[in-house]
Amino acid sequence: MFRNTMPRYDILSEDALATLDGGWRRLVSEVGVEFASSRALDAFAAAGQEVEGSTVRFDPDFLTEQVAQAPGEFDLQARNPSHNLHVGGDHMAFAPVYGAPFVREGEVRRDATLQDFRRFAMLTQTFDELDSAGGVLCEPSDAPLDSRHLDMIYALQTLTDKVYMGSVISADAARDTLCMTEILFGGRAQIEQTPATVALINCNSPLRWDDRMLEAQIAYSEANQPVVLSPFLLMGAMSPVTVPAALVQQIAEALSGIALSQLIRPGAPVIFGSFLSNIDMQSGSPQFGTPESAIGLLCTGQIARHFGLPFRAGGALTSSQLPDAQAGYEALMTLLPTFLAGTNWVLHSAGWLEGGLVSCYEKFVIDVELLRSLRHEFTPLEIDEDALAFDAHAEVGHGGHFLGAMHTLERFRTCFYRPLLSSSDNFERWIKRGGQDAAGRARDISASTLEAYEPPPLDDAVRAELEEYVTKRRSELGD
Amino acid sequence: MFRNTMPRYDILSEDALATLDGGWRRLVSEVGVEFASSRALDAFAAAGQEVEGSTVRFDPDFLTEQVAQAPGEFDLQARNPSHNLHVGGDHMAFAPVYGAPFVREGEVRRDATLQDFRRFAMLTQTFDELDSAGGVLCEPSDAPLDSRHLDMIYALQTLTDKVYMGSVISADAARDTLCMTEILFGGRAQIEQTPATVALINCNSPLRWDDRMLEAQIAYSEANQPVVLSPFLLMGAMSPVTVPAALVQQIAEALSGIALSQLIRPGAPVIFGSFLSNIDMQSGSPQFGTPESAIGLLCTGQIARHFGLPFRAGGALTSSQLPDAQAGYEALMTLLPTFLAGTNWVLHSAGWLEGGLVSCYEKFVIDVELLRSLRHEFTPLEIDEDALAFDAHAEVGHGGHFLGAMHTLERFRTCFYRPLLSSSDNFERWIKRGGQDAAGRARDISASTLEAYEPPPLDDAVRAELEEYVTKRRSELGD
Repeated sequence: MFRNTMPRYDILSEDALATLDGGWRRLVSEVGVEFASSRALDAFAAAGQEVEGSTVRFDPDFLTEQVAQAPGEFDLQARNPSHNLHVGGDHMAFAPVYGAPFVREGEVRRDATLQDFRRFAMLTQTFDELDSAGGVLCEPSDAPLDSRHLDMIYALQTLTDKVYMGSVISADAARDTLCMTEILFGGRAQIEQTPATVALINCNSPLRWDDRMLEAQIAYSEANQPVVLSPFLLMGAMSPVTVPAALVQQIAEALSGIALSQLIRPGAPVIFGSFLSNIDMQSGSPQFGTPESAIGLLCTGQIARHFGLPFRAGGALTSSQLPDAQAGYEALMTLLPTFLAGTNWVLHSAGWLEGGLVSCYEKFVIDVELLRSLRHEFTPLEIDEDALAFDAHAEVGHGGHFLGAMHTLERFRTCFYRPLLSSSDNFERWIKRGGQDAAGRARDISASTLEAYEPPPLDDAVRAELEEYVTKRRSELGD
Repeated sequence: MFRNTMPRYDILSEDALATLDGGWRRLVSEVGVEFASSRALDAFAAAGQEVEGSTVRFDPDFLTEQVAQAPGEFDLQARNPSHNLHVGGDHMAFAPVYGAPFVREGEVRRDATLQDFRRFAMLTQTFDELDSAGGVLCEPSDAPLDSRHLDMIYALQTLTDKVYMGSVISADAARDTLCMTEILFGGRAQIEQTPATVALINCNSPLRWDDRMLEAQIAYSEANQPVVLSPFLLMGAMSPVTVPAALVQQIAEALSGIALSQLIRPGAPVIFGSFLSNIDMQSGSPQFGTPESAIGLLCTGQIARHFGLPFRAGGALTSSQLPDAQAGYEALMTLLPTFLAGTNWVLHSAGWLEGGLVSCYEKFVIDVELLRSLRHEFTPLEIDEDALAFDAHAEVGHGGHFLGAMHTLERFRTCFYRPLLSSSDNFERWIKRGGQDAAGRARDISASTLEAYEPPPLDDAVRAELEEYVTKRRSELGD
């Protein structure tokens, strides 16, 4: 795992933090948060909060007390122990694109299929830059709706040996994820002791948690599996148009969700979530890679640390319809601040295109290049006498070159970042090699990676038990 | 002008700075710096430095004393006062690509011509994101070599009304630049009082200043025009392969050049220069947008501030052969740290492609988009009660949307960054509008910008005097 030991780029003053603090306190106590779940409402009422209809108005101090019970850092186990994760502190975990109904491969944009899902799982398994197998790598439109989650979890469990994200479309789907995770890890006690899956719980912003998400959240928190409580804020639509207002709303929503998990199971692991960008006020379309989203991300990191919580934010987001220059700069416009903020859980860190509607093979490879490069960039310099290379200067003198210097020869294999995708070929060599743009080369890398894919070993008995579970449940669900 | 009042992202500890300080002191005193100019050598000898052949070994304290005479900030006048510049402090000035022998426009890559030079000058004049007209926007191969500088300066002076960069190919060319600048600004006294042009003086790294550059530097410093003393460091070739060694060398080279300017004219304005990246150790090709160059840039800012000097670094650099995804992410991989470091003079901030061999029309527009977006991103948030939008929440409640909220309606025109190039059109609308990638749209913007170009007004008498000077000098130079 990558540990980001570089400084954080904090841009909020103490005064600004205090103003935001006053803002969320007023919001939760005066406007409150809606919970479409009687279990949640009962729990908050029993804890002394003001419940009116499905709206809970909170004592802000109650929220901070609940939040204080959540662990600041926690472990996640993978079936391959070398892929175990630590969430929080200076650790950063990267997961691929999540939730896209379409895929793009070269010139073709089409409905995503289960085969696409599997292929994205294979890419995710292969690239070391991705720590988690992710969850809904794309929406497999050719798999039956009611049992689709079984196919996805099974693919993630068998084609990868990394930590996967659980299904959240219903309480049943969450329970299926938990049952299949128990099979893979040897029982409920095993996964309650060290969690083995993580679930993305989106808020129906503004200030409302929906029933299916809440049911899934409750199932995961009861089982001690971490949930990412994610306000879903496209400023102008789901939040006001000013970043400070969005931040205040984000705190109110995230803390209210986190408090519920703590009531369900005190000490349950949670991640402070953020999905924060804005719409185009002319067209209403979501925009990604915007300056506003970068600013929001930097602030979010500072706020999450203020509450002592691991946080999710950022990714390789873009509005672009193609893996072109816009996709490249927009992805980095979010991904570089993702590192500057020291983000602990980074969803959508590879493959996201067209505002999240498309999982793109070429973009996946482009983003892996960015992740590789940024890991290198956010590794502190070693500054000692040896690195100053005085002897090399004494050897080379004035106006010479260092290509053959001893200091160079001793280091030339590892001294610089070596790109996966980027080309620095001179024009003639580049033409000779086919004169492809980055998207074309990315497509080749994606194809050769899939070709070289090898499935991680899995015990036959465990595989059989998983298959049996999927078959049984598929039949129960009527597919 | 853009003032960057966001925090600086400083990554060097006090200990690290002290180690680097020891490094350059040892380098200048033990290995020394070569100056291919008897005037420079005489000046250093007269100032008590050890001169052996063309090598000067310095007392490090002598260098810091000289450097302390240079102004920490200074003004530059443009013929349009609204384009006057301030160099240093939190001000950032942006100039376009410099020095490319080729141009790219769409599918065509060709030798640059004087017409290309003029067209890039017209783009630079039009976009507010560029503060300076730049210098060698491309190398016009169809203009005679000996008098080419006259054509370029004349084009910059007449097609733009922004601060231009002076010719440095020889002492004569520098003097021509100064004479033409005197004509434009009304005499030598006018430009000595407030400088009106700035010159890029590259070091022949490692540790050698060449004769033509030195002659140009001396001419500009005598006339009180600022010079950018730029170590030219592609690690692995012109410097050792470790960033700390490159930083130490950069300090040694820059300070030695700055000291010369101070001996020529105490208090002459200078800019601490940096051009710092690395080569590919397999092919020997220069690489740009690398993690090493980003780290070097962040350190450079911290070092320049340590010496109280304005600094030049960064830009929209890329190795890519096309304005593709790689060009987008590599440009931002340098440009975002350029802002994080608070760079005062940013050369190559628009149009650079293919490692600086190509000035590209489409890339120019892509980079202008990045500059616009980053200016927005590096503008501090206003965090007050109004920005918290409590009333909007009270109005919208739970699960609604903010599109029609009063707070939104009052701000919707200006609340978010509005892109020049980036598209967030949904797929259907994007197809309907032509389904172009970012490079294609950038080409359209470049073409329409050139079409709409209007030359800034210029006094007929001044224009005639400039033309007369160019004609006379062209004939003297035998072209």
